Amino acid sequence: MEFKISKDLIQQLEELIAHKNDQQLELLLNDLHHADIAEILDELNFEEATYIFKVLDSEKTAEILLELEDDLRENILKRLSPKEIAEELDELETNDAADIIAELSKDRKEEVISELQDVEHAKDIVELLRYDEHTAGGIMHKELVKVNENWSVLTCVKEMRIQAENISRVHSIYVVDDEDRLKGRLSLKDLLTTSTRMPISDVYIKKLNSVKVDAEDVEVARMMQKYDLEAVPVVDEIGRLVGRITIDDIVDVIKDEADKDYQLAAGISHDVEADDSIIELTKARLPWLVLALLGGFISVTLLEGFQTAMEFHRELFFFTPLIAAMAGNVGVQSSAIIVQGLANDTITGSLWNRLVKEVSLSLLNGVILGAILLIGSHLLLGVGYQLGITVTVSLLSVIVIASLIGTFIPLMLNKFGIDPALATGPFITTSNDICGILIYFSIAKLILGF
Amino acid sequence: MEFKISKDLIQQLEELIAHKNDQQLELLLNDLHHADIAEILDELNFEEATYIFKVLDSEKTAEILLELEDDLRENILKRLSPKEIAEELDELETNDAADIIAELSKDRKEEVISELQDVEHAKDIVELLRYDEHTAGGIMHKELVKVNENWSVLTCVKEMRIQAENISRVHSIYVVDDEDRLKGRLSLKDLLTTSTRMPISDVYIKKLNSVKVDAEDVEVARMMQKYDLEAVPVVDEIGRLVGRITIDDIVDVIKDEADKDYQLAAGISHDVEADDSIIELTKARLPWLVLALLGGFISVTLLEGFQTAMEFHRELFFFTPLIAAMAGNVGVQSSAIIVQGLANDTITGSLWNRLVKEVSLSLLNGVILGAILLIGSHLLLGVGYQLGITVTVSLLSVIVIASLIGTFIPLMLNKFGIDPALATGPFITTSNDICGILIYFSIAKLILGF
Repeated sequence: MEFKISKDLIQQLEELIAHKNDQQLELLLNDLHHADIAEILDELNFEEATYIFKVLDSEKTAEILLELEDDLRENILKRLSPKEIAEELDELETNDAADIIAELSKDRKEEVISELQDVEHAKDIVELLRYDEHTAGGIMHKELVKVNENWSVLTCVKEMRIQAENISRVHSIYVVDDEDRLKGRLSLKDLLTTSTRMPISDVYIKKLNSVKVDAEDVEVARMMQKYDLEAVPVVDEIGRLVGRITIDDIVDVIKDEADKDYQLAAGISHDVEADDSIIELTKARLPWLVLALLGGFISVTLLEGFQTAMEFHRELFFFTPLIAAMAGNVGVQSSAIIVQGLANDTITGSLWNRLVKEVSLSLLNGVILGAILLIGSHLLLGVGYQLGITVTVSLLSVIVIASLIGTFIPLMLNKFGIDPALATGPFITTSNDICGILIYFSIAKLILGF
Repeated sequence: MEFKISKDLIQQLEELIAHKNDQQLELLLNDLHHADIAEILDELNFEEATYIFKVLDSEKTAEILLELEDDLRENILKRLSPKEIAEELDELETNDAADIIAELSKDRKEEVISELQDVEHAKDIVELLRYDEHTAGGIMHKELVKVNENWSVLTCVKEMRIQAENISRVHSIYVVDDEDRLKGRLSLKDLLTTSTRMPISDVYIKKLNSVKVDAEDVEVARMMQKYDLEAVPVVDEIGRLVGRITIDDIVDVIKDEADKDYQLAAGISHDVEADDSIIELTKARLPWLVLALLGGFISVTLLEGFQTAMEFHRELFFFTPLIAAMAGNVGVQSSAIIVQGLANDTITGSLWNRLVKEVSLSLLNGVILGAILLIGSHLLLGVGYQLGITVTVSLLSVIVIASLIGTFIPLMLNKFGIDPALATGPFITTSNDICGILIYFSIAKLILGF
């Protein structure tokens, strides 16, 4: 069902490249899907990949370019002249072409744009480059089929056939007025299943969802999922049809958003992959680790402050990692549920209700875990009555406080327009570690009196 | 652009329900999208929601049923007779109908199926119920348009118009032979843009991707994303066309998979939402917390074992939470990158290369963090030379070991066919806490000799 790269194939290709056997290379690769060829190129070194890239014709390589890993694409583009890049881009949809141009340096950008052959295409690309990449404008396509509301169905079918030539997926035919303002839509199916003699004004559906060009991409994704839309038209400030977003563009938005939240929860500050360079990976991992280390300094200072306890209650210090770890885990759970709820728009009810619920929930968890700790520490670790009570009461309090921190910090961030996913992972474990230790020793001081 | 629920609207509805003013209710709700009505019902109590549900007609309520939160749907279904449920299901696509039937108890399942009016529909539903929900069969639709390879294009268009009546999105027209075996496809666009006099055998595309009915849903999702497919036909063991999967079904698979990985990384053992009941939330959160607590017992035992150090090196104990926290954070980062890489199929190269890379990466991170710790602990915390060195060397070692554990445990789980995402979150932080403390005190014992 799916193509799988074999070591043999890679070896064979490397030999063909070494012998500059272009004919065999073409023969071997021409039948493969561009996504498969991209996967193969990612396995080769930059020189070999560029060699194959130049052997294949631009209709294929343009599509391959889109599928490559970022660093390989960057390297191949470096080895191409502005004219060669423009030839690739002429083969692509405007949206994809704009994405690639956006990756170039400012000087090369202009050179490449000036080399584009199709003026309409170039105009569309320049327009798309203006939009922020995380808005509807940044993910929309310029390719769409539109007809004028004043046309007859016959004109409409003729015109549609011409326009559809360059579009891989039609979905809907948009109906506009003389000013290009969006009025409604026709589905391909409707066009197929109604008589051609009908006037278009009688056929088209006037009610349709559309999005503003500056709407956030995640909002568009949420709306398309909720209303189960396959494509949605994009309009500008005065209602003119400027583009179209299809569900496959949304798949990327959803995946990127989920990946980002996952990485933040794991303490990775920007998008990396296991196969990125060590420098890239360090840049993504170090910031949160430094923060956690600084948090660690605070916990050391706190423990130093409580060192008088060491004279008579040294066992207290054996439980610090346990208390800190539980605080961290509870906090991460609470924050993750909130972050996911905010992302899926399923958080309802008042703050007060949420507070009551979170306290009840953490009390329930805390009592069960406290009971296990009290009994377990006595039976397994031989901990005495007084210390057992101290540790158990502390655990219960720490769990309640940690879950409140985990719940309300992301809610607050969200309120102030900051990404709530920042308050997951190392941020929440570190702050909860510190709070946990502080609460633990304060309670111990109260009960044991040192 | 998007409908937003207001408190006023909810209040208005509650009053109308209290006064049994069905006419006004219909008037108010009839123009809304079924997804919006579902959102409104989720805000009402079960009785009110059921009341509205019975006021609206089944064409609308069937779609609403699909969009409701699980517990509300369960409660509404409880209040409907098998005949009433069957009426709802007759309005739905087979796939959606099967999903709802699957939620019923065994007895009701049979009663509902026997009440279905459309025999073809019932047959399809019964077939779909056979497939595991995480396979291609479990997510596919039976609704599709297919034509025989021996037909003329004219017959094909006629036949297609009949079949398309009941299908919301056509995408592709599949071509089969007399035995119903999949031979190729025709796109709607091709049908619109080619002459009707052509024989169908000349028009259809013979090369197409298909999936086996027992393929895993995540594999289908990966393939459709990779090859940028909007719909893919599903075939049985002998190549007969049995269904079709569209990209919007895949959106759900991708989201579910991402949510599941996120929740595992946060120590939540099954799918919950912030608005679920406290019992549900506790069931999801407690298991990992108990595991972490048991891990905590081990760390207590370890520290007890090293308590002789307390005589002369009590400061060592101040650093335990710092070391444990760093071990946990590094482990979570490493495991998250691997889990995401495995999910996106971007992990390449040999185990040996990965080992070398992970060790280099963690050494680089470790040296930087170690330097900060050495200098910081001296300047900020006034830590002496010997202890500073001890803690720094420990941190460096702990980071290397923790990142190796974080990298190789998910890889191993994956190799044995176990979900690698299990080795994220509390699992990895707990095991790394323990390893971290053990390494730290062992190194301290070597350097300081106690």
